[in-house]
Amino acid sequence: MFAPERQERPQDFARTKAVGPMLDAFLPGNEHLTPPEVFAIREPGTAPNTPGWRVRVVPNRFPALRVEEELRREAFGLYEKASGLGAHEVIIETPDPRQELGHQPLENVLNVLRAWRQRIVDLAQDVRFEHILIFKNVGWIAGASVAHPHSQLVALPILPRAVKEKTHNACEYYQRTGESLFAELLRGELAEGVRIVHENDGFLVFCPFASRMPFELCVLPKRQSPDFHVQSDVELALCADALRTGLAKIASAVEDPAYNLALTIGPLRRDASKNGEFIQAGFCWHIEILPRLSGIAGFELGTGFYMNTVFPEEAAATLRAAPVS
Amino acid sequence: MFAPERQERPQDFARTKAVGPMLDAFLPGNEHLTPPEVFAIREPGTAPNTPGWRVRVVPNRFPALRVEEELRREAFGLYEKASGLGAHEVIIETPDPRQELGHQPLENVLNVLRAWRQRIVDLAQDVRFEHILIFKNVGWIAGASVAHPHSQLVALPILPRAVKEKTHNACEYYQRTGESLFAELLRGELAEGVRIVHENDGFLVFCPFASRMPFELCVLPKRQSPDFHVQSDVELALCADALRTGLAKIASAVEDPAYNLALTIGPLRRDASKNGEFIQAGFCWHIEILPRLSGIAGFELGTGFYMNTVFPEEAAATLRAAPVS
Repeated sequence: MFAPERQERPQDFARTKAVGPMLDAFLPGNEHLTPPEVFAIREPGTAPNTPGWRVRVVPNRFPALRVEEELRREAFGLYEKASGLGAHEVIIETPDPRQELGHQPLENVLNVLRAWRQRIVDLAQDVRFEHILIFKNVGWIAGASVAHPHSQLVALPILPRAVKEKTHNACEYYQRTGESLFAELLRGELAEGVRIVHENDGFLVFCPFASRMPFELCVLPKRQSPDFHVQSDVELALCADALRTGLAKIASAVEDPAYNLALTIGPLRRDASKNGEFIQAGFCWHIEILPRLSGIAGFELGTGFYMNTVFPEEAAATLRAAPVS
Repeated sequence: MFAPERQERPQDFARTKAVGPMLDAFLPGNEHLTPPEVFAIREPGTAPNTPGWRVRVVPNRFPALRVEEELRREAFGLYEKASGLGAHEVIIETPDPRQELGHQPLENVLNVLRAWRQRIVDLAQDVRFEHILIFKNVGWIAGASVAHPHSQLVALPILPRAVKEKTHNACEYYQRTGESLFAELLRGELAEGVRIVHENDGFLVFCPFASRMPFELCVLPKRQSPDFHVQSDVELALCADALRTGLAKIASAVEDPAYNLALTIGPLRRDASKNGEFIQAGFCWHIEILPRLSGIAGFELGTGFYMNTVFPEEAAATLRAAPVS
């Protein structure tokens, strides 16, 4: 995906400095520095684009994709191009610039999840979009260019290759066995127990069997669905507890490492065919948290495998024991 | 791939410091600090594991894989485990700790390629190995833990997913069209010209159409083969020129950025079936150079796509104009 406009960002190609002490456009009072908000959870009586918000969603000022684009595709020779249609939004998670997601009060984490849910509900109605990804970059080495706690949303007109592969595997498994791969995984992890970090009535937080990085986590709902946005308020509160606990335990055990988070949902478009049915029954949304405790280097890029120095059972034991407030 | 032994490395989980001023085990005179060499190009009359080498290959002191392992596979539930069989070697590229590959004299780069070729020839004879990857990490952000110029070799008992995908695509294309995808790509790039950075009688150095990072390069041989190690001395000298020029141009245009390099060859095991024939005719080895000028972040991990701020045609024009000595 080419986004030459993003080259204007002053921090581009800055290879060695930490996240800089730039003007914080995400602070209350600086609302005029961002594009107008598309969603916010606010104190009663406060006006849009003024202080008084708890969570605020704005279009990215340097968007990699734009909703105003037409969907154009062009093929020449071996290659194919598509226009930069899509959406790129920023979820400002808290007015407090120092309080990362895992350290926020539960109510605030829940507000962040409410914002994620609402933006997915809204953007999923645009039939041009095939997929919506929500992600977070925390710390410079994890790709963060702004220190103020925020997550990002990208809506795409094509299904990303990573999601396509997961979907293919889930559908293939469902077709072959009549069972959901994700439900089997949940059952297996609950039965074995050794990789579990946290569990509540709605969610399991565990270190995946094939963890790519030390202390990698997966947050998986017990009620299986490809859709994050169908969650009830009760489920969302349990999700907030699961996510917050997982992040807080990593922060406690490994001293606030840089990390990436990705929320993967099923493909938005499910037709009446078998494949639509397989996705509905066999795919489940999930959150992956990848602490950036070791490099993504030549080995990883050349193989697609990861070299990890900590077994998931050991990581889970450490995280289970880590105190969180 | 889990390698808990590698946790002993003192630099593990060091998240912010640059490559440290540790004792350089790769300096001449320090040969006793590495395992005994398995290959070297030396001044006439010098003994193994003493100074006098130009290029020296040793087993990795913290190997992620070991040749002494048995190949064991174990399945339980959804999961599968395999033992850590393999080889992990370090190619010490020069006695000079300050001279990275792109700045070395051509003769030295050629010696490095000779070492790569010889180690592939030797290790390919071990029928337990399905694949051999050679890679380089330069700079801390690219995963380097040692500053002295070196590359690494990993021999694996399974075909890595990244190579499996390339092989699948190349075989599918060959079966469908009767043409090699890599040969078509070479023809297309030569015809269009706008992404070419350097060309000699044996090689094309170009910025790939779907470049993941600014100034990404691919080095592709004109004589198509899945095997790096069948190259003649003349071809290897042309390869050294192509690789050195590409690296030197990146260093000149972007001030010695951190980068990863990966040499991808075809699957080692090709049976007499159609698939073996497709690999032989449709796959071509190639070198990818990925300057780490932007992060691998949540978007990249969640989609498998990369966000790049520089179009390959623009990057190629910059690199073509970059002076190299």
